[in-house]
Amino acid sequence: MTKDLPSKKRGVHFNPDNVDTVVEAGANLLQAAIDAGVHINASCGGTGVCGTCKVLIEKGKVETTRTEKLSEEEYEQGVRQACQSRVISDLTVYIPVESRLEKAIISREEKVAPEALATGWRFNPPLSKFFVELPPPTLEDNISDLSRVLRNLKRQYHLNNMTVDFDVVKKLPQLLRDSHWKATVTTLVTAVKPRGAEKRRPRVINIEPGDTRGKYYSLAFDIGTTTVCGQLLDLNRGKAIAQGIDYNGQIKYGEDVITRIAYCQKPDGLKKLQQAVIATINGVINQLLAQTGVELKYIAHIVVAGNTTMLQLLLGLNPKYLRLAPYTPAANLIPPMKANSLGIKVAEQAYLFAFPLIASYVGGDIISGIVGSGVYQRKKLAFFVDIGTNGEIVVGNSDWMVTASCSAGPAFEGGGVKHGIIATTGAIEEFDINPSDLEPVIGTIGGEKPKGICGSGLINIAAGLLEAGVIGQNGKFNTNLPTKRIRQGSDGYEYVLARAPETQIGKDIVITEADIDNLIRTKAAMYAGCQTLTQSVEISCSDLEQVIIAGAFGRHINIENAITIGLFPDIPRDRFIFIGNGSLLGARLVSFSTDLLDDARRVAKMMTNFELSENVDFMNNYVAALFLPHTNTNEFPSISKKLGLPGSKLKRRITA
Amino acid sequence: MTKDLPSKKRGVHFNPDNVDTVVEAGANLLQAAIDAGVHINASCGGTGVCGTCKVLIEKGKVETTRTEKLSEEEYEQGVRQACQSRVISDLTVYIPVESRLEKAIISREEKVAPEALATGWRFNPPLSKFFVELPPPTLEDNISDLSRVLRNLKRQYHLNNMTVDFDVVKKLPQLLRDSHWKATVTTLVTAVKPRGAEKRRPRVINIEPGDTRGKYYSLAFDIGTTTVCGQLLDLNRGKAIAQGIDYNGQIKYGEDVITRIAYCQKPDGLKKLQQAVIATINGVINQLLAQTGVELKYIAHIVVAGNTTMLQLLLGLNPKYLRLAPYTPAANLIPPMKANSLGIKVAEQAYLFAFPLIASYVGGDIISGIVGSGVYQRKKLAFFVDIGTNGEIVVGNSDWMVTASCSAGPAFEGGGVKHGIIATTGAIEEFDINPSDLEPVIGTIGGEKPKGICGSGLINIAAGLLEAGVIGQNGKFNTNLPTKRIRQGSDGYEYVLARAPETQIGKDIVITEADIDNLIRTKAAMYAGCQTLTQSVEISCSDLEQVIIAGAFGRHINIENAITIGLFPDIPRDRFIFIGNGSLLGARLVSFSTDLLDDARRVAKMMTNFELSENVDFMNNYVAALFLPHTNTNEFPSISKKLGLPGSKLKRRITA
Repeated sequence: MTKDLPSKKRGVHFNPDNVDTVVEAGANLLQAAIDAGVHINASCGGTGVCGTCKVLIEKGKVETTRTEKLSEEEYEQGVRQACQSRVISDLTVYIPVESRLEKAIISREEKVAPEALATGWRFNPPLSKFFVELPPPTLEDNISDLSRVLRNLKRQYHLNNMTVDFDVVKKLPQLLRDSHWKATVTTLVTAVKPRGAEKRRPRVINIEPGDTRGKYYSLAFDIGTTTVCGQLLDLNRGKAIAQGIDYNGQIKYGEDVITRIAYCQKPDGLKKLQQAVIATINGVINQLLAQTGVELKYIAHIVVAGNTTMLQLLLGLNPKYLRLAPYTPAANLIPPMKANSLGIKVAEQAYLFAFPLIASYVGGDIISGIVGSGVYQRKKLAFFVDIGTNGEIVVGNSDWMVTASCSAGPAFEGGGVKHGIIATTGAIEEFDINPSDLEPVIGTIGGEKPKGICGSGLINIAAGLLEAGVIGQNGKFNTNLPTKRIRQGSDGYEYVLARAPETQIGKDIVITEADIDNLIRTKAAMYAGCQTLTQSVEISCSDLEQVIIAGAFGRHINIENAITIGLFPDIPRDRFIFIGNGSLLGARLVSFSTDLLDDARRVAKMMTNFELSENVDFMNNYVAALFLPHTNTNEFPSISKKLGLPGSKLKRRITA
Repeated sequence: MTKDLPSKKRGVHFNPDNVDTVVEAGANLLQAAIDAGVHINASCGGTGVCGTCKVLIEKGKVETTRTEKLSEEEYEQGVRQACQSRVISDLTVYIPVESRLEKAIISREEKVAPEALATGWRFNPPLSKFFVELPPPTLEDNISDLSRVLRNLKRQYHLNNMTVDFDVVKKLPQLLRDSHWKATVTTLVTAVKPRGAEKRRPRVINIEPGDTRGKYYSLAFDIGTTTVCGQLLDLNRGKAIAQGIDYNGQIKYGEDVITRIAYCQKPDGLKKLQQAVIATINGVINQLLAQTGVELKYIAHIVVAGNTTMLQLLLGLNPKYLRLAPYTPAANLIPPMKANSLGIKVAEQAYLFAFPLIASYVGGDIISGIVGSGVYQRKKLAFFVDIGTNGEIVVGNSDWMVTASCSAGPAFEGGGVKHGIIATTGAIEEFDINPSDLEPVIGTIGGEKPKGICGSGLINIAAGLLEAGVIGQNGKFNTNLPTKRIRQGSDGYEYVLARAPETQIGKDIVITEADIDNLIRTKAAMYAGCQTLTQSVEISCSDLEQVIIAGAFGRHINIENAITIGLFPDIPRDRFIFIGNGSLLGARLVSFSTDLLDDARRVAKMMTNFELSENVDFMNNYVAALFLPHTNTNEFPSISKKLGLPGSKLKRRITA
């Protein structure tokens, strides 16, 4: 192509995007990229001071003003600042991932407030790709094929002492010859960096013919007790390009972790549970591939977060001792392993990294959430709560962290609620009640006809019914009210939210007294957990400077209503921040940054775990919280005022 | 037991031998062990100066004179010199492997002269066993099961930063509880020690209930083109306790490596060859287990040496490019792998270490032989020759080494010889001929009726026939001689060694002109190889200070006869040393010493390989050697004299 150009025209080829453009000789390289639609970061707008637009000149010549942003080593390797370079000859330019990363997108797509996101990490994924062009062997240079690859990794990329997966060796001879000695090597950081060690020893996990740096993907998964959520990450862009979700296939063996642990003790029970969640994961992976057209073979890393039981079940580790005192998990740090050895349908080279666990009921999902939300990085005293089937909570900051798990039950994920469903189109989320005739006003996700109630809807409904006096502080219906919406159903009293013809399911959608009871137990466990942790460090809930709410359903929660029913402490509303699925957030960020991967291990060691199940303070706090919003109205001053409650303390106590 | 002893009696329990004895209070601990039949090394005879009798006092009290042989760290850990210790209380004493090693046996059993054995290595097998007694978990100390094990490994044995195989994690929870928190951890050094690193990061590959330190085994294998030979090693005793051998099952697909490489290009060819050798290995393992009663589950390491093609076939690496110029192997350093992933029937935890390769035709068997024989450690200029199906040769010393492979063919292993068999009972090995009537005098291995001719027998027969004038220097029969032993057979002229009724096979055993021709080509390739290598470094064969002969059949070779036919250079006979199967020797020693394992990698890097197949000097040397002993009588002065040859040089040359 370039040969036929007029004498003042120059051809520029951008890798790995594989984009060609033609510019005038002497053109600015950054501008050339912008004009060609090729993204190169340039925070300073092309003045040379930020150093974010570094590119590698693979072939050809540029004229460059060298600034102190380029190290001598970089300069020698052919790295240049695009904004400081003029095109002299035809060029082949490689844009490294740091210069392509759309950092802003990471947070934008998740709508996470920056004050609840980990900061200060470099984009340096554990998974890397390196393109090598090898000199073909001769009789004078007939070292082995593997030595030839390693020699170039050392020369081109200063990579030393690599470990090599045997599968790579196996395909090497044919692959190198078929690809004319041009190949892309995938490496993965699998081991913890030994203390004091300067360099890691990455593992060569794959080799592909030609230049495949443009196809550079990994997966992040949150394995919840109720739902499994996965994201396909494009590591060239530093963002999730697809998201998939499904119910955890283990639900048919039991809704909560206790039931599933019990099921494991049956013959083949563990195996069935493992296979069920693997099947779910495989289904989600299929969703992700279908959405994007990405080929499975280009996915080489899976980061998985989940609670301790979910991770042990996924890995086939019998969770029996998780529920027997003194509640010990099998391992805190899970060794990296080939994902397909578990039955996950990915290519042979893909490794699975499971987040470290802390204790029986405080798992990798919490570590992941804490890492993702950066609680461990800030001085600010935070309350972190992951509302899933279990309510896992952390109180702390960059100096210390205490954590605990409250057996919440799956009410927020649609479990244990008569018409409960996960947050999907048709789920009732908005709720209001006309105080005059007690008729409901409902809103559904997507505006479709209702088909059930999601977790945030449940809170809104309970708060609305409480404020309207349809239910009392004990959660029981006021059956004397003049409305047909309250009626005796098959499970006791219930309130009709939507009548059969207005629904997708062809029957009345109701909320029952049992549902509300379930919700009260759930919120009581969570609130009591928070109280117990804050008391343990001799502070109170009102001292919390930040409340970070994680959990798939969290994003749509109405804070005012959640405080009204006593789920969250009654503190200024602007201290609350939602981060959505924190476990998935952490899994994603760790996939982007080896720094954060190391942090995850550090956070796991930093946490002090409280076993609430045998804790007397917790039991007292729990019983006291079995009321809407609470038996101690002083704990909820603004709500007590709103509901017009007397200042009296209806404190019930139990003693051990 | 100990409670009922009279007040001056003390009970001593020796681990891992699990032997109890009773001694007087104040008795010398070394003497107590000797009396109880428990072996503890004591090179100095109990005077305290050698430090070889170190033991660990696990329970109880001794009174010790501390010498400088004990480091402060050892002393604090409870290590004492048995000879310097007096029994004070009842004791439990652990005898570490270094103090139990019967070093002398390593060489004695192999009948290898010490001047041709690697020296200066410590007994520190890559495979280690560590017994841990863990404090059971409590609510205050409920770290994960794995963390508990690693904590004790650190406290008891100063092991840090361990990598852990996932299979270990998997069985941990149940195993620890069933074994009452007493278990034995197996570790393996799999990675190359990074340059400058002080410590390695061993890998935890297994955990067993209770104290299994007494059951500590590995396997060493030599995979020859013709035969596969294995040894079961007792790492507690530092010796081979069983040896097994069988034909390589690949023989049915071709006798030499070239044929097998060609076979690999057929559909499923590689797979069939791999399965064939794996089946052979599995058979040999069964032999080893049957001989010793050792349980398979206690074998956790397999060290394999073999030529490049054999190793690539074993590992399933297509050897296609080994025989196409420029002759490159797939890899020099083979990553460690689980042995059962190849189909080798051993327990899940067992790893396979394959010796590093140098080039297409110079493989891990040579590295193994060089390491085992210590050629790389000495100043003495050595010629190392491994006589198998290929003749692989090395010339060098501790400063430099050159190596090459001569396509010898399988004549010495029974291949390509009409009645050739491997060295087994009934193989004709001794041969003499009555000069008056030309009748043979034969001797067989084991003294049984003959059933064939082994490699060493072939040499003796050819030398005898040459000296008696039955064959000429060109290897052709002198058909004018007055004996019926020389006759026309189905394959041309032949000499009858044994008549049918005297044999086990019921037919005449003969040596044919074709057999002798085969032998001449074999010995010519070997000798020309040696000449070419020595010429390349500008020395001659007579400068060699040591000739180390490796190869399964080598041990029984008659040096004088081998020189007579021109296989070995005509230098003083006392420079020749046999080491038997050098490849197996090296595999065994590496199993005993991580030092030697590192040396193997160093030796691989140190060797310079010569490709003889396209070397003009080699071709000239080869053609000149196609005569008995050689066309150049000056090369073989003593033989020329013995045979009464004229001094003339019958030198034939080809030019490129």
